[in-house]
Amino acid sequence: MKLHLNAEYLLSKPLTGEGVQKVKKYIAEETKEILVKGVPKEKLSESPKIIDSNISDELISVTIESGTYVRSHAVAIRLKNSLSLLLGKEFKVGIKKVVGKKYTLTLELEKIPKDPIKIPFVDNILIEGNNAILTLNDLDEEFLTKNHVDRIINLFYDKVEAQFWGGKGEHWELISKSKNIDPLTNKDPTTELLALGWLKQGPSQGQWFYHAPIAALLRTMERIAIEEILKPLGFIEVIAPKLVPFEIWEKTGHLSGSEPEIYYVSPPISRDISVWEEVIDLYKITKKAYVDKIRERMRDPIGGMTYAQCPPMYWAFDGKTIDDSEFPVLIYDRSGPSYRWEAGGRQGIERVNEFWRIEPVFIGYPDQLIELKEKMMERYAYVFDKIFEIEWRTAWVTPFYMAQSGQTGIEKETERIKGTVDYESWIPSRGNREESEWLEFQNLSIVGDKYTKAFSIKSSKNKELWSGCSGIGLQRWTVSFLAQKGLDSDKWPKEFKKYFGEFPRQIKFV
Amino acid sequence: MKLHLNAEYLLSKPLTGEGVQKVKKYIAEETKEILVKGVPKEKLSESPKIIDSNISDELISVTIESGTYVRSHAVAIRLKNSLSLLLGKEFKVGIKKVVGKKYTLTLELEKIPKDPIKIPFVDNILIEGNNAILTLNDLDEEFLTKNHVDRIINLFYDKVEAQFWGGKGEHWELISKSKNIDPLTNKDPTTELLALGWLKQGPSQGQWFYHAPIAALLRTMERIAIEEILKPLGFIEVIAPKLVPFEIWEKTGHLSGSEPEIYYVSPPISRDISVWEEVIDLYKITKKAYVDKIRERMRDPIGGMTYAQCPPMYWAFDGKTIDDSEFPVLIYDRSGPSYRWEAGGRQGIERVNEFWRIEPVFIGYPDQLIELKEKMMERYAYVFDKIFEIEWRTAWVTPFYMAQSGQTGIEKETERIKGTVDYESWIPSRGNREESEWLEFQNLSIVGDKYTKAFSIKSSKNKELWSGCSGIGLQRWTVSFLAQKGLDSDKWPKEFKKYFGEFPRQIKFV
Repeated sequence: MKLHLNAEYLLSKPLTGEGVQKVKKYIAEETKEILVKGVPKEKLSESPKIIDSNISDELISVTIESGTYVRSHAVAIRLKNSLSLLLGKEFKVGIKKVVGKKYTLTLELEKIPKDPIKIPFVDNILIEGNNAILTLNDLDEEFLTKNHVDRIINLFYDKVEAQFWGGKGEHWELISKSKNIDPLTNKDPTTELLALGWLKQGPSQGQWFYHAPIAALLRTMERIAIEEILKPLGFIEVIAPKLVPFEIWEKTGHLSGSEPEIYYVSPPISRDISVWEEVIDLYKITKKAYVDKIRERMRDPIGGMTYAQCPPMYWAFDGKTIDDSEFPVLIYDRSGPSYRWEAGGRQGIERVNEFWRIEPVFIGYPDQLIELKEKMMERYAYVFDKIFEIEWRTAWVTPFYMAQSGQTGIEKETERIKGTVDYESWIPSRGNREESEWLEFQNLSIVGDKYTKAFSIKSSKNKELWSGCSGIGLQRWTVSFLAQKGLDSDKWPKEFKKYFGEFPRQIKFV
Repeated sequence: MKLHLNAEYLLSKPLTGEGVQKVKKYIAEETKEILVKGVPKEKLSESPKIIDSNISDELISVTIESGTYVRSHAVAIRLKNSLSLLLGKEFKVGIKKVVGKKYTLTLELEKIPKDPIKIPFVDNILIEGNNAILTLNDLDEEFLTKNHVDRIINLFYDKVEAQFWGGKGEHWELISKSKNIDPLTNKDPTTELLALGWLKQGPSQGQWFYHAPIAALLRTMERIAIEEILKPLGFIEVIAPKLVPFEIWEKTGHLSGSEPEIYYVSPPISRDISVWEEVIDLYKITKKAYVDKIRERMRDPIGGMTYAQCPPMYWAFDGKTIDDSEFPVLIYDRSGPSYRWEAGGRQGIERVNEFWRIEPVFIGYPDQLIELKEKMMERYAYVFDKIFEIEWRTAWVTPFYMAQSGQTGIEKETERIKGTVDYESWIPSRGNREESEWLEFQNLSIVGDKYTKAFSIKSSKNKELWSGCSGIGLQRWTVSFLAQKGLDSDKWPKEFKKYFGEFPRQIKFV
């Protein structure tokens, strides 16, 4: 890696000849500390260097070259600080601004990208032999200070990698499997429920109306999750906001790729009725929503509907120091639906845009979470084996490129602590248990310190804090159950019947 | 009312001289039926008239004048149909289109508007003595057919009326009042809850995070509503969509004025990751949401988040004929929050943008709903008197201009069946019971056949169907209780404690 930066420092007023000499001397003789600070001892030969400088009365121009240890943009900022000190004290001259006029990043390639790569802020990307040469121009101080360049370098390498592993799916590995269970049906639950009139599709893509009998089933799933899993383990209920501002997703990292699935939310530009008079009048006359005129009166989106339930739950602890007697913190939310924009067409209630979940979130010491995960998996197993009596399995699923590039602990059993366990159920209507695609009906993750760090959640004893969560999808639990047990409740497992009771009457249509 | 319309009929090919004669004769001698059909017998003198016509080979131009009975635009459409028949059969000539070239509406005024009035599609409004003269130009057939003109006339009169009554607030009339109860506190609940750390404000305007103790209170309110009110009366739970497309609000009429408070929802323009690559890259580099670039990638809004919970519940019965044995249909939903964009600034949890409600909806014969309303009011009274033991009252609240213009049954006790009963609680922190503003903490409405008609919901015996609903706000129930009973649960009424149990532990922060 070779990072070649031409940085310019614009001064608040012209320097005297004496000042110019002073700066020249400083750059030539006194910048060693700035250049080597932070470079590992065995890599001192790769320290950044100032290879050129040019001082006029109002502008200092410096060319810096670095490798990966202490990068040129960091040097440029260090230099700004020390020059400010020097010029301010002796000559009452300030630095008005620093600009990265031209920044050339030469990056070694292990693989030559097959397709062109585009990256914001990068004006040109040239592949030359085994190097990629990225050129950036006119970078401001914030850009140089805030790790933007480092992230651009990482992003470039990720994009090269994705060209080789992208679209190759996931690495799937079985963790455990329940015993085989003969299903009581091989019919598709959604088709059955529609025929009964218990479901109505709509009103928009991926939404359903759940009439009383199926609502009762969803609520039974909720009750089982609470009584059999959450309460016994000590989880307490909170009610978390369901509209999530971008600021929260900026911290959780959901904006690294969830954008194509988010339902965006915009408040009105004003509550003043006169702003809306035209839209309201048009409706009163035509009985139609004038969508283009509504759009003109919408603010920029402030965020989106719940995509995953946990981000606002972490946000609730933003910047908090929690008394160590509290760990593990065990909370759950079940206060409203989540939304994901899925590809079109009718699909069953197992794949919907609007879905209801219970989301337990846990924060604690690593060993506490490892123990908790075991206990949760035991409770889940109890529910699926003894209450649902269904055939299910758990699997370790990793995006293929991560598995290949060693970004996950796929190779080492001991590193499996962090990561996501997927729960899958056999859906007999899709085919036999060996060949058909099973339904991922819930998951359980330990995410390490990702969110505790992102939200600066601390232990009062300053111990390492991890967190994790588990998405319990009410529709997916329901489909997993119905797909194997059918709709004849007389044949359902006794333990499930205890929770469910009887179907409420469905309203008769003629 | 005088409606003066110049309508033009564009023909598919030129008429022969014979054809022109035929049309002239038809208009002069054979249009009587078209002109008087539907005019009340005693108003025949006010029947519409064709006062001029002009027939060239490709264009028939007609000037129609009418009063309020059978209006000129209706005549223009009738004429189109009969001319089509006449010309098609004998001359193989069709009518390509009909245009309302110029439509002049002369409307009598009881009050002269003080300010200018604007109405979409109306190019000019002139006040002349006691008349308003509205001019519309170039109206297409859909416009003439679909009642647009009639709605414009109504809208004009409403706007005149609003200039006199607008902003004059509401007519408030006491229905009943509980006995006086000495409050156990006069502190503001939200302030208290914030001090305890049980609430956290945000993450966006009018949202709160409810930690376990206050979540437990909200859930207790829900349980009381279900166990004491809904279940005893036979309501069954459904799960209704929480994202509401405009099509539903077009039917319910919420677009007649809710627009300034709606949170609009837009799906992404595409799930294709390449469409979003720039936004995602910008986030990966800067850790910021690029809102302008997100907005460019949002579809037009498809609707909004739940504003009132009932519209999707009526939609579930859209076009359905319900077996008469089912009435009254009694359902409720509690599956997620509602959203209203309220004016800014911090307010307590009694006035929030994101709030949780249980919404019972009932559909049945008028007498069934009248009886049900009585029973619901009894159950509510039991909860507020015997479980909450709070001081509360009910009131009949009508927008002032409606009360004045006789649009409501305010004067007649017997007409009070339809309409909304507001429930209000005394909030001691706001002042004494006589002078302070009480909190409207729930309501109960019978809306007549408004929604059953809008959604064509029918009884199998074709009987008249009414509907109604009641919004039970969990936050407002909670505030009503806490404002009078305080947070010391040892002092709470025994019946409430039975439901509540004990506070869950709140997480300790340091």
